[in-house]
Amino acid sequence: MRWTQTFIPTMKEVPADAEVPSHQLMLRTGMIRQLMAGAYTFMPLGYRVVRKVSEIVREEMDRAGAIELFMPAIQPMELFERTGRREAFGNVLFNFETKRGDRNLHFALGPTHEEVITDLVSREIKTYKQLPITMYQIQTKFRNEERPRFGVLRTSEFLMKDAYSFAASLEQLNVQYDAMYNAYCRIFERCGLEYIPVEAESGPIGGDASHEFMAPADNGEDFVVRCKGCGYAANQERADTGRTSSVPAKVDGAADPVKVDTPDAGTIEDVSKMQKADPATFIKTLVYIADEKPVAVLVRGDHDVNEGKVRRAFGATDLELADEATIEKVTGAPVGFAGPVGIGCDLIADHDVAGIAAAITGANAKDTHLTGVVPGTHFELSETFDLRNATAGDPCPKCDATLEIVHGIEVGHVFKLGTKYSESLDANYLDSSEKKHPIIMGCYGIGVSRVVASIVETCHDDGGIIWPMHVAPYTVELIPLNVKDDDVMTAVNKIYDDLTAAGIDVLMDDRDQRPGFKFKDADLIGLPVRVVIGGKGLKEGNAEIKLRTDDKATMVPIGDTISHVQELIADNG
Amino acid sequence: MRWTQTFIPTMKEVPADAEVPSHQLMLRTGMIRQLMAGAYTFMPLGYRVVRKVSEIVREEMDRAGAIELFMPAIQPMELFERTGRREAFGNVLFNFETKRGDRNLHFALGPTHEEVITDLVSREIKTYKQLPITMYQIQTKFRNEERPRFGVLRTSEFLMKDAYSFAASLEQLNVQYDAMYNAYCRIFERCGLEYIPVEAESGPIGGDASHEFMAPADNGEDFVVRCKGCGYAANQERADTGRTSSVPAKVDGAADPVKVDTPDAGTIEDVSKMQKADPATFIKTLVYIADEKPVAVLVRGDHDVNEGKVRRAFGATDLELADEATIEKVTGAPVGFAGPVGIGCDLIADHDVAGIAAAITGANAKDTHLTGVVPGTHFELSETFDLRNATAGDPCPKCDATLEIVHGIEVGHVFKLGTKYSESLDANYLDSSEKKHPIIMGCYGIGVSRVVASIVETCHDDGGIIWPMHVAPYTVELIPLNVKDDDVMTAVNKIYDDLTAAGIDVLMDDRDQRPGFKFKDADLIGLPVRVVIGGKGLKEGNAEIKLRTDDKATMVPIGDTISHVQELIADNG
Repeated sequence: MRWTQTFIPTMKEVPADAEVPSHQLMLRTGMIRQLMAGAYTFMPLGYRVVRKVSEIVREEMDRAGAIELFMPAIQPMELFERTGRREAFGNVLFNFETKRGDRNLHFALGPTHEEVITDLVSREIKTYKQLPITMYQIQTKFRNEERPRFGVLRTSEFLMKDAYSFAASLEQLNVQYDAMYNAYCRIFERCGLEYIPVEAESGPIGGDASHEFMAPADNGEDFVVRCKGCGYAANQERADTGRTSSVPAKVDGAADPVKVDTPDAGTIEDVSKMQKADPATFIKTLVYIADEKPVAVLVRGDHDVNEGKVRRAFGATDLELADEATIEKVTGAPVGFAGPVGIGCDLIADHDVAGIAAAITGANAKDTHLTGVVPGTHFELSETFDLRNATAGDPCPKCDATLEIVHGIEVGHVFKLGTKYSESLDANYLDSSEKKHPIIMGCYGIGVSRVVASIVETCHDDGGIIWPMHVAPYTVELIPLNVKDDDVMTAVNKIYDDLTAAGIDVLMDDRDQRPGFKFKDADLIGLPVRVVIGGKGLKEGNAEIKLRTDDKATMVPIGDTISHVQELIADNG
Repeated sequence: MRWTQTFIPTMKEVPADAEVPSHQLMLRTGMIRQLMAGAYTFMPLGYRVVRKVSEIVREEMDRAGAIELFMPAIQPMELFERTGRREAFGNVLFNFETKRGDRNLHFALGPTHEEVITDLVSREIKTYKQLPITMYQIQTKFRNEERPRFGVLRTSEFLMKDAYSFAASLEQLNVQYDAMYNAYCRIFERCGLEYIPVEAESGPIGGDASHEFMAPADNGEDFVVRCKGCGYAANQERADTGRTSSVPAKVDGAADPVKVDTPDAGTIEDVSKMQKADPATFIKTLVYIADEKPVAVLVRGDHDVNEGKVRRAFGATDLELADEATIEKVTGAPVGFAGPVGIGCDLIADHDVAGIAAAITGANAKDTHLTGVVPGTHFELSETFDLRNATAGDPCPKCDATLEIVHGIEVGHVFKLGTKYSESLDANYLDSSEKKHPIIMGCYGIGVSRVVASIVETCHDDGGIIWPMHVAPYTVELIPLNVKDDDVMTAVNKIYDDLTAAGIDVLMDDRDQRPGFKFKDADLIGLPVRVVIGGKGLKEGNAEIKLRTDDKATMVPIGDTISHVQELIADNG
């Protein structure tokens, strides 16, 4: 492709409203343009990358035995009511009523396609002989993001590969899940994207077990807990801390806690300033409603409660923070002064609470805290649990090393769904003795447009993008130093034709611009290989060839250009 | 691909609710399955064809110099208000309001993308130096079809290739238009789809000149007027009739028209039965409002008024059928009894009206008609016009032959848009003397999923589909006669591997079924080449090879299978 024949509107300035490097660079390279908040057009250069990533995804899905199909984007709302996802998605689910003749129809725009494919399978698959099967599509998904941001990292429509597996046994599901997991690893490797597979909660989508694939990135919105020792990795909701504790024995003759006045100080931050005390010496007391019963959850002042862990510790189905009235009822005080001593409900404590020798806590009385509270002495503590998010420095739950926290962008997710959807949508199979069972499902997603942005987010320098070889919009940028010089253009056109004939994607910058201007744009759009023709080099019969990552170019006899480029591609793929 | 590893749910029965062959066959071959009215999933076999057609479209667009991008499906409603298409589309435009935070947003689902791309161009293109440019995308479009039908021929979402050209002069536009026109011809040829390019009105989308590409098909909803002599072709709205007439001289001493009672007979059909008269002897009188003024339009009783022609004859901007009150006012009678004699408004007549010697007309009085009405004598007639739809047997407007009427499916459309969108969305360029002009646009659409259905609609026999070579879901169906016979499977697996290695798409029917069952399904799904291995043939060292269109198979030494198949593909591509 010749630059003047396509449409690559590069920009020198960093756009003011773009916060993260990928957003800035995708705008500056003319890969994307905004239509409105949360909606971008993929411009010619950007869409080439989308297509290359899609093709890698397709090849690896096919290789893993998944079958491609294509489902409608507009879905009947009724299906979301049957699976309960209308409520689970809430306002995020784009949906609307429309008239057709005298009928009123209620539609949703597919955020994913569990409902549609399970409905299809419920009609078409009847027996275990038709199982296992995994199907996928590459398609635009729609979500009414409350706060779209970071360019195409979080938008109201995005390209996704979504796959769904159907099995007659857990063994079949596990084989399918592993096939998708391994395909995902190959996809990210081929895309040149660093990734960490992490253990994950399955979240509102429901189900048993799942992994997220995280691209480590400073601006990632997710937190990955990772052990450098053994490779253990989990998202922050899921990560175990590796802490344990022995429950402290009751201290005989311990001094009573001391009441201190803390007027209007309802947060740990307020009180720690007022008392000049380390938040790690506080016990944070949060009142929850677990399956309709109020309970107090204790964690150290510098820690955050992990509701998934609390839910599991209680074996509770529903868990939510208590309302003000409940808090006042169990503590006898306004919100902000809860503490374990004398609280009017059951309590449960994190392991680290036991390790505080003399804690500061709320006093269950307005504008009052207690100091010198001894866990197990001033309040009962027969057992402790892992109830909080892991933090950097926590011991690894799997080895002797410690955990670190890494920011990441979620680029893929694999779920074992179980029978949530097949039960609510009547997708059943008959086993060999004609007995009916719900089909066992898995679902597997990759955000294709998000992968593109993640590559840019993680592969760039001050000059611009550094494309990995297999997802670059073009592999080679070919620069004639002077487009008005016939000798230059004869040589360049021959190289262009030869590279194209060799099946290599080449972008020729045939703009009538100064070399420095073109070199800056070449660094900005970041194609892997740069070939410059002209000047002294050409007079000496040479082409000037460099990788985007090289500081200096190599002079190569002009007749060897194609073979040299081919070598660079082979060595750096 | 092995049949047992994919998902091709074929059906023996013709589905009761599918009216046309393409809908029946796409259901029976498992190419599509319905989600709800107007919404279909493309199943694995069907989606392969969609992808093959898309790839042909993409290659020909690229070859024609168009640049691919990808725009959002959700569009701000405000853009449709600025171009007036909110009103033009009416209920067909899916649109909805949604909340994001405390903002109310109003979105449309893109039926096409004139607005979005013109908005983009208005921001990014500033000078004639950036023109001409043509951009395209292949994307799902959304339309709230009042009556979706015929499977994927008319659905509420469908895959479309839409291209938009931007030019600084009419000469540039014409070059772009011709490039697209020629690309369309190549696309349909490569798809193996018969097509007729026809002159067309530009319809509500606005603009100057356009062609539709019609696939001739008995069940097509469009009418193509075609001359077998010179190749002239136009859609029925556009086609000229080639009639002329000399205005009849006033007949001196002609008998007055005779009033006849036609109680409750307000249609030509009623009166022609009652009077035992040929509708061709009637004058049909329709009252229209042309730019706020009532006018009577006269055509022969067996002809249909063409409103586009009437609008042009009057030079009118707005034209609509008059309401009941206006009709009663100008005729002095209830609806159904209008006639040219003594009517209280201007009138305009089609050429053929002049040729009726003694006509039957309404009498402008309740339950009364006139017979023996002589045009030019009993009412004034100083000029006649082409005001009606062409019919079979009309003279060709371009040569001496006569016209025929063919049913067709519209599969593509090219428009010269002019400046309608660039003016309403401020897309301007500066010329070489820095003067501002609106950019001149064209738009070009192909319904990709409709092309797929049209191929099925036109390429089938009683046994099933007959796929053209380059769009077949697989090129070869490989059938082992007995999957439990090791010799058969050894031979078949080798052929499968060799065909695959030669880059040929092959589907192996490895189901444990009787040969007759597999042959029926092979005819049904209609792959171009069938290779059968087993039985006596295999014992003699032969493969049995036939085209889908052959009655009899050829026995070929098994070692020559690949080369023989390659020859068949080359000869029948």
